[in-house]
Amino acid sequence: MRFTSQQRLDDGVLEREFTLGEIPGILWTPGSASAPAPLILLGHPGGLHRMYPRLVARARHSVAEGFAAATIELPGSGDRPRSAAEEARADLRRALEAGEPVDDEIVDRLVLPLVDEAVPEWRATLDALLPLPGIGGPVGYAGGVIAIGIRLAVVEPRIAAAVLFAGSFVPRALFEEARQITNPLLVLLQWDDEGNDRQMALDLFDAFGTKEKTLHANMGGHTGVPHFEGDDGSRFFARHLK
Amino acid sequence: MRFTSQQRLDDGVLEREFTLGEIPGILWTPGSASAPAPLILLGHPGGLHRMYPRLVARARHSVAEGFAAATIELPGSGDRPRSAAEEARADLRRALEAGEPVDDEIVDRLVLPLVDEAVPEWRATLDALLPLPGIGGPVGYAGGVIAIGIRLAVVEPRIAAAVLFAGSFVPRALFEEARQITNPLLVLLQWDDEGNDRQMALDLFDAFGTKEKTLHANMGGHTGVPHFEGDDGSRFFARHLK
Repeated sequence: MRFTSQQRLDDGVLEREFTLGEIPGILWTPGSASAPAPLILLGHPGGLHRMYPRLVARARHSVAEGFAAATIELPGSGDRPRSAAEEARADLRRALEAGEPVDDEIVDRLVLPLVDEAVPEWRATLDALLPLPGIGGPVGYAGGVIAIGIRLAVVEPRIAAAVLFAGSFVPRALFEEARQITNPLLVLLQWDDEGNDRQMALDLFDAFGTKEKTLHANMGGHTGVPHFEGDDGSRFFARHLK
Repeated sequence: MRFTSQQRLDDGVLEREFTLGEIPGILWTPGSASAPAPLILLGHPGGLHRMYPRLVARARHSVAEGFAAATIELPGSGDRPRSAAEEARADLRRALEAGEPVDDEIVDRLVLPLVDEAVPEWRATLDALLPLPGIGGPVGYAGGVIAIGIRLAVVEPRIAAAVLFAGSFVPRALFEEARQITNPLLVLLQWDDEGNDRQMALDLFDAFGTKEKTLHANMGGHTGVPHFEGDDGSRFFARHLK
């Protein structure tokens, strides 16, 4: 891992861009030296530059609450080479534009390779970040892509808790993995998100195997998660990571 | 209204029992004189003595967070005269014991008269409590019976926000009233509560007319609402009552 830039945000948070091999990422840590902070991985749908304003807001919030935060670019997004899922993405776009139901087969072709590729990258990011001074375990994952969060929670023992943003297009195979999760989960669902299959999100919440799961449903559409959910997420992580 | 007893709990909270006409009730206020505290009405399924341990825990929590709290006995419960709904209650018990579906007609006979009778009593309680020193508006309602909470939120302008505990046996007529609610709502649903109709609770959440509604679903059965939901409820009321 190599740090490529460093800046101090106006609230003192230290923001460092890095590359892990070819994968660009960003790390946010408290401005002053302090005890090792639990790390929160910020999941997102891809496109670090496009997502930056929302990511940095979530990161500042996390750091203010005593965590470190980090994110990486997804395979096939941003400046990274297009992936094999491009064709499936085009098929999905066609189905959505035509108002047709989206075949499970398209979802599998789109999401499963992404999960297979992204999860080892997130794990490699943990390998690189956790030894840094000021960063400690345990680790939380927060955000979409929910399929990535599910797989990570199942296979990565350093993930102790997760805040998952409900989204559509979860392969059926991931429902089976969801049953294996035993860590605490907080699931955020935007109730009136037209691009989201509400019933599927509720079925997925039902499927999670953990005994400690909480669903927060709010109004406000896909990008309208209320501000107070940031506080709720921090308190959830404080209960389970500190 | 007449105070019938007064005691200081070990954390300094002042607990006063009162009667409002024939209705017994309890008021909890901060131990020391302070600025008027917003009042939270604690709803419950009836039986003040039986419910006391849970009510006093909720009340202590509310007072610690800067609120006053009060509750009254429901019509037909505790030491109050049995109500006309006794027959419907027996019919409900028979249906549940026989494992039969509960007719809408039974629910209407059981719940509608209770709502019609209880809501004016809660409003009279507000009339009696709000002029007391140390108690101010606005007012929150927290708890079951959800049908009572719905009607109160619709007809009582002093109710500014409500935390409603999802429960079964909500008359269809109350769904129509639910659409008229414009105040912020936090709805608590015990996801794996066998005595609760989960789909009905989700349909009711969907029906609420307010633009600011949040659903919190948790595991743990009917009486297993996690402790952290008390904190979440206090923060919800702090946002909307203070």
